[in-house]
Amino acid sequence: MSTQGSFSSAEKAAVYRAIYERRDMRHFTGGEVEAETLQRMLSAAHAAPSVGLMQPWRFIRISDSQLREALYQQVQQERLATAEALGERSNEFMQLKVEGIRDCAECLVVSLMGRRETHIFGRRTMPHMDIASTACAIQNLWLAARAEGLGMGWVSLFEPSAMRSLLAMPADTEPLAILCLGPVAEFYPSPMLEQQHWAQRHSLATVLMDNRWHDELE
Amino acid sequence: MSTQGSFSSAEKAAVYRAIYERRDMRHFTGGEVEAETLQRMLSAAHAAPSVGLMQPWRFIRISDSQLREALYQQVQQERLATAEALGERSNEFMQLKVEGIRDCAECLVVSLMGRRETHIFGRRTMPHMDIASTACAIQNLWLAARAEGLGMGWVSLFEPSAMRSLLAMPADTEPLAILCLGPVAEFYPSPMLEQQHWAQRHSLATVLMDNRWHDELE
Repeated sequence: MSTQGSFSSAEKAAVYRAIYERRDMRHFTGGEVEAETLQRMLSAAHAAPSVGLMQPWRFIRISDSQLREALYQQVQQERLATAEALGERSNEFMQLKVEGIRDCAECLVVSLMGRRETHIFGRRTMPHMDIASTACAIQNLWLAARAEGLGMGWVSLFEPSAMRSLLAMPADTEPLAILCLGPVAEFYPSPMLEQQHWAQRHSLATVLMDNRWHDELE
Repeated sequence: MSTQGSFSSAEKAAVYRAIYERRDMRHFTGGEVEAETLQRMLSAAHAAPSVGLMQPWRFIRISDSQLREALYQQVQQERLATAEALGERSNEFMQLKVEGIRDCAECLVVSLMGRRETHIFGRRTMPHMDIASTACAIQNLWLAARAEGLGMGWVSLFEPSAMRSLLAMPADTEPLAILCLGPVAEFYPSPMLEQQHWAQRHSLATVLMDNRWHDELE
């Protein structure tokens, strides 16, 4: 396959469309994801860039329904702990739907691999580049899912050590995400947290600077 | 703009094409990036998901050539420090081209904003989700660049504290990337580090597991 050609206007528009129509979904309609489609999306994730070609991502498919329920319970626990930590925004937070674990067709846990300390290229001063690489893989999966007409949500409301215990993960792994994936009734027209007035979108200009730090939002 | 429609086969193929043909580029041919195109790609980055809609990313465009040279020097210093830390792979590493700072049309520094501690949603147990969100934004930018026919490279060979000094960044910011962006003669047919035998691509099967940890690669 040649990787040299330029993209037609239509191809370019499709890439931007996926980027703009991707949503962090929490509402799912059950159903299923065909094995072939799941494989195609995971291949897209695995085609992500990684620091020093480290490929630090690992995907654990949760097909066991008891295990899925245990994940759900972990998230409920962390949801309450988060509400408490939020103080005055606690009630507001508790009104939000924060996950779709019980309703989604597929549930995946994504983690950093163990034994990462030998990977020094691009990580000597910035060891957290392994997290960045794994997030790039998840973003690929997200965009591929949108193109396939499937919704995806990233849940980070859990205690990593509890997750390690549940899935028999070594101490030097680092779980980063519970991904909920599958058919949805509709994609939110704008981010759900924006619709629910949890936070406002900044304008692009406010996150851009020239040559030195001058953050308008601070 | 409706966000409901399904993607046509052609649109779907275009999204996968961008995912598979995106490369971490270190070879650039100078030139320039039109202001409108840069804006379009940065808007795509800013359309990324973020934990609790935090939008933690900040982009600093380096248009000052002396500043760009100072970035280059910082990377050279870290390149030597990395080579030393790599021990027996030191010579092999020093053969690799690791950045295109002097040759790319546009150079951007990406950082986490400061004052992140009040953002607790999705971060109480996992504060590093801000890094993950910013990496999703960078991956959007990368894919948009490929669709625009432009190359991009992510350089993480620098000392964050030196970068903060150089760009007058507050102590609680966290620089994550020097992005090199612009026209390229060609996109690598496969990842450069694979072509140079720095590392091999794993098969997808080796990074997938079912229900519990069993990492074939360990």
